[in-house]
Amino acid sequence: MDRKAKMAEFLDEQVIEDLDRVEEIIFENLKSDVGLMEEMTQYLLKAGGKRVRPAFVLLTFRAVGGTDIEEVIPIAAAIELIHTATLIHDDINDSSPTRRGLASVNKRFGLAKALVAGDYTFVKAFRIGGAYDGGIVKIIADACSGLAEGEVLQSMNRYNTDLTLEEYERTIGKKTAGLISACGAVGAKLGGAGEDVVSGMSGYGYNLGLTFQIIDDILDLEGDDSKTGKPLGTDIREGQMSVPLIRARSVLEPEKKKALADLITKEENTQDEIDRAILIVRDTDALDFSKGLAEEFASKARQALEVLSDSDYKENLNMLIDVVMERDY
Amino acid sequence: MDRKAKMAEFLDEQVIEDLDRVEEIIFENLKSDVGLMEEMTQYLLKAGGKRVRPAFVLLTFRAVGGTDIEEVIPIAAAIELIHTATLIHDDINDSSPTRRGLASVNKRFGLAKALVAGDYTFVKAFRIGGAYDGGIVKIIADACSGLAEGEVLQSMNRYNTDLTLEEYERTIGKKTAGLISACGAVGAKLGGAGEDVVSGMSGYGYNLGLTFQIIDDILDLEGDDSKTGKPLGTDIREGQMSVPLIRARSVLEPEKKKALADLITKEENTQDEIDRAILIVRDTDALDFSKGLAEEFASKARQALEVLSDSDYKENLNMLIDVVMERDY
Repeated sequence: MDRKAKMAEFLDEQVIEDLDRVEEIIFENLKSDVGLMEEMTQYLLKAGGKRVRPAFVLLTFRAVGGTDIEEVIPIAAAIELIHTATLIHDDINDSSPTRRGLASVNKRFGLAKALVAGDYTFVKAFRIGGAYDGGIVKIIADACSGLAEGEVLQSMNRYNTDLTLEEYERTIGKKTAGLISACGAVGAKLGGAGEDVVSGMSGYGYNLGLTFQIIDDILDLEGDDSKTGKPLGTDIREGQMSVPLIRARSVLEPEKKKALADLITKEENTQDEIDRAILIVRDTDALDFSKGLAEEFASKARQALEVLSDSDYKENLNMLIDVVMERDY
Repeated sequence: MDRKAKMAEFLDEQVIEDLDRVEEIIFENLKSDVGLMEEMTQYLLKAGGKRVRPAFVLLTFRAVGGTDIEEVIPIAAAIELIHTATLIHDDINDSSPTRRGLASVNKRFGLAKALVAGDYTFVKAFRIGGAYDGGIVKIIADACSGLAEGEVLQSMNRYNTDLTLEEYERTIGKKTAGLISACGAVGAKLGGAGEDVVSGMSGYGYNLGLTFQIIDDILDLEGDDSKTGKPLGTDIREGQMSVPLIRARSVLEPEKKKALADLITKEENTQDEIDRAILIVRDTDALDFSKGLAEEFASKARQALEVLSDSDYKENLNMLIDVVMERDY
C-alpha cells in the first residue's frame, strides 16, 4: 500500500491535501545542479515512507486552531528531510543493505556519497528552518542533537545486558521520541497555542514515540516477518537490549539468564541460536510486560491530548495511538 | 606553533581577543550530558586549527564598521563548527588515519560514532544560526549544500584525467571557496554593509579560497613534507586532478601524457611511481602556470578589498592573501 492509501485510512482529508503540499516543498528543496546529488537525496523519499512526522505537525497545527497552513508546511517538510537524513546516516552506521524495499543509499551509491547525501538533506532542512523564529529552530535542533546522542548511547550500550529500563527510556527518548515530540511542539507553537498546550503536544509526541519503539521491540520477537519485512530477533543479533529482553533478564532463573546473555553478547549468532533466545524470552512474561508498558505510554499520550478541545484533528491524533498500538508491520 | 601564536603574527590584537570569545562559544555549545559525545566533538577542536574562518568573519565585520562584536561572535563560532563537522565527515570518506597530528575522529572512535559526532557538530552550528535572520542562515546553508555538492563532484571526477580547469573551479568553488565566501558575506552583512560591500567581501573570500587550494595543489608536488605534514603526491595517489596535473596533461607530448594519466588512474601506486609522476609534471611549466593562476585569484581577492575604506582590518585582510600565497606548510 502506498503512503497516500495508508494515511487515507484514518487521516482527515484536509490533512491529506496538506501533505501533498509538504511533498512538493520537500522535492523542490532537494533540487541540485549536481544531478547525482538530487538523485541520491530523492531516492529514499521516492521509495516510500508514511510521512508520519509531517502529518503529526499538520494535525497538531490544525488541532490547536492554526489557520494559515502555509506557515507550517515548510517546517513539516523540513522535519521529514531531517528524518530522511538520519535514515541515510543510520543505514551507513548499521551497514544496512536495504530500506523501504530498495537497496539502501549506502548500498546503492557507496558510503562516501551516502554520507554527503545525508549532510545535504540535513542542511536543506535547516535552510528551511532559518525562515522561522529562533525558538522553533531551537526545538528542532535540540531534538536532532538528542538524536545523535541517543545513537551514541545505543552504540555504547551494545552488548550491555545489564541495561536498565531507565537507561532504555533515556536512550529511546533521545533517539526516537525526541523528534516526534518536537513535531508536536512545533505544530502547536506555530498554531498559536499557549505554553500548556505546546507542552501537552510535545508530551503526546514523546509518549507516542516510546509506545512505537516498544511495539517495535515486541514485533521483533513475535511479529510476522512477512509483514514486518525484517527477520525476527534483530535486537538479539545486534546485541541491543529491548524492553522484552530487559524484562526477561530480570525474571529469568540464573541459568537461563546467563544463556540469554551469552546469546545476546555473541558477535555472530546462527539462526538456531536466535530461535533459542527468542524461545527463552517468550517463555517468560516479558512480552506481556512489554505490552503493558507500551499501553502505559499510550495512555499517557491519550491523557496529553486532553489539553485540546474536541475536533476531527484531535480524533485523528487519538486514532494514531491506536494505529501504533495495533500495528503488526 | 599554536593557534594564538600563528595568528598573533599578523592579526589585529582586538580580533585576537574576539577569537577568544569565539572559542568560549564553541566549547559551550558542544557540552552534552553524553560524555562521550562531548569528548568526540571537542577532540578535533582541541587538537588545533587556525580558526581562519571565524577570524575572517570578525575581520570583515570590523572592517565594514561593525561595532557590537557580540552580534557576530556566535555565528563566527557556528561557522567553525560547520568546518569541523565537514573535517570529521571528510576523514570518514577518505578513511584518513590522522588529522591535526592526532588520530582522526573515525580512527579514534570508530566510523559510526564519528559520523554522528559530525552530525551533532553540524546541528549545534545551525542551532546557533537559528537566532539570526533567515538571510544569514540561507547564505551559510547554501555554502554547506555547495560543500556537499563539491564533495560529490570531486568523487565523481576521481580518475577523470580529462577534467578541465572550468570543472576544477566549479568543484573547488563549491567545496573549498564557498564557505570562505559565506564568511565574508556574513561578516559584512552583520556589520551593516550595503549590497556592494557584501558582495565584494564574498568575492574576496571566494578568490582567497581558490588561491588557497591552488597553493595546496602546488605544495603537493614540490612542498617540503616535513613542513606540510603530508607526503608528496597525494593528489596523484588519490586520482584527483589538481591545477598542475590539469596543466601538465594539456602541454605534455602524447607519450608522457599517457604515462601520467596511467599513473593517476592506477588504483595503487608505489612510491617510485608517484616520484616518476611528480618528475613528469615538474618537467613541464605546470608549477609556474599554477603559481600564475594562484596569483590571478589572489589579485582578484586584492581588488575585491577596494570596496573597503582603509583600516587596520583591511590591512589584515590584505596580509591574509600574502600569508596564503607564501605559505609552505
